[in-house]
Amino acid sequence: MAFLIGIDGGGTSCRAAVAGPDGRILGRAKSGAANILSDPDTALQNIIEAARAAFVEAGLDPAGICEACAVLGVAGHNVGDPVHHVQRRLPFAKAQIESDGLIALQGALGDKDGAVAILGTGTIYIARQGQSVRYTGGWGFTIGDLGSGARIGHALLQETLLVHDGIHAPSPLASSVLAEFHNDPREIVEFARLAKPGDFGRYAPPVFQHAEQGDVIATRLLAAAAVTIDDALDRLVAQGMQKLCLLGGLAPLYRPWIAKRHQSRLAEPEADALTGAVALALARYGDDRSSAA
Amino acid sequence: MAFLIGIDGGGTSCRAAVAGPDGRILGRAKSGAANILSDPDTALQNIIEAARAAFVEAGLDPAGICEACAVLGVAGHNVGDPVHHVQRRLPFAKAQIESDGLIALQGALGDKDGAVAILGTGTIYIARQGQSVRYTGGWGFTIGDLGSGARIGHALLQETLLVHDGIHAPSPLASSVLAEFHNDPREIVEFARLAKPGDFGRYAPPVFQHAEQGDVIATRLLAAAAVTIDDALDRLVAQGMQKLCLLGGLAPLYRPWIAKRHQSRLAEPEADALTGAVALALARYGDDRSSAA
Repeated sequence: MAFLIGIDGGGTSCRAAVAGPDGRILGRAKSGAANILSDPDTALQNIIEAARAAFVEAGLDPAGICEACAVLGVAGHNVGDPVHHVQRRLPFAKAQIESDGLIALQGALGDKDGAVAILGTGTIYIARQGQSVRYTGGWGFTIGDLGSGARIGHALLQETLLVHDGIHAPSPLASSVLAEFHNDPREIVEFARLAKPGDFGRYAPPVFQHAEQGDVIATRLLAAAAVTIDDALDRLVAQGMQKLCLLGGLAPLYRPWIAKRHQSRLAEPEADALTGAVALALARYGDDRSSAA
Repeated sequence: MAFLIGIDGGGTSCRAAVAGPDGRILGRAKSGAANILSDPDTALQNIIEAARAAFVEAGLDPAGICEACAVLGVAGHNVGDPVHHVQRRLPFAKAQIESDGLIALQGALGDKDGAVAILGTGTIYIARQGQSVRYTGGWGFTIGDLGSGARIGHALLQETLLVHDGIHAPSPLASSVLAEFHNDPREIVEFARLAKPGDFGRYAPPVFQHAEQGDVIATRLLAAAAVTIDDALDRLVAQGMQKLCLLGGLAPLYRPWIAKRHQSRLAEPEADALTGAVALALARYGDDRSSAA
């Protein structure tokens, strides 16, 4: 029987796991960035490197990846050209490229119905009911991703300009941001002009920290951001979702900000996205072929 | 005595007026775009063309512009290089380049103290007390210009995605925008990715129109936008401004949305920006040299 490979390819690093035909994970490893959209060739290289390293970690011959069956979760899985480019060059016997969200959902919920809210630099919601998987939100920073780290950071910088102009009252958080930009609003404007979502997103964790200390601006920004998350969770509940998992880097920070009406539905994730990728590989390529794609 | 020239240089057109030594306007004319930042040479050409045409309109020899004294109001007047480029090449005997906002304020308030809120594709506030002129806001679309046409249009497209996702309830306005994009959220995302502030701003007037008909989304968006204007006006009032003028393309639309506490301070502008430029030219270069710069 062939080994199974799960890949969790992200913009910062690529993680891989190898499992036996029964789905039990034998080894894990990590390599560099696997951003299929911005750099498909480097992504491909790091996917292969992580897979080989996982085999080595498991005490297996890394040449074995060529006979293994893989499921990969990546950002931008539905953007045609770069995905085809990578798909054609993967060295595995069989491979399917899925969204990073789907492997995260599989890891978090196992085979149960429910939904995940992925709260990181961006935000996206994925609901599964039986075989049906539905995506909500996730339209990106420019016009979507409400409540995301990028949007929180953007709102903070905007608020800092209002404080500088004397339109809003100052707070320790706004003062610290102003000081970082040498109290020069033009520096903030210039930063924002060039900033990518990840650059804005780096200002989100401090907002949560300051809110804990009662900072009025941080509290106002997070109350507004949490409403956008609650609104989206309302939609998932209306679709029949009983179990909700918060995932992503901001999930633990957001937990206390989520409305009471949703708290009883929040569940801890069963496992991580990499485990989810292996589980999907098992379902599709494992001993039990009944649910193979 | 030399003639006086006022120039109102905008991104769409350039207007010029010529006045006698007493400041009485003798002729007006208009030419093409005068965007000093994006195309200083074309701007220069259109400034000269408008000035010459104003002389012709007044029955004067257009060669006379070389002996005239001018005040020009332009966007981006404080951005070094392109302004120096234009300043050095102006054919007038004397000339000063000011902000488009300052000539608008001069036109609206005459020589009185007070403030103007310029509500168009962007938003900026200018307050004058005696010789002191203070700018508030106007940091641009990315991180400022709250309440502007661009921000209202952006908020509408964002809201339309939330309606598409079933997170917010629909409204006639959101449905009409969705229909314009063939009910395909990806078309909205792609539009937003490439849109400049003016592209977003074109969606602002329909928001005001739909709000008048009771559209819930339009009403919510404008209520939120008006709060940002009211907050800025609060700041101007706290600075001692008793007289406020709303200027710019959205001014008449915004008027009923401004908070009651400000309504008694709102005044109609005395004259337009071009008249303001001529008035500044008179003050600086006219017969009465007492307030010349």
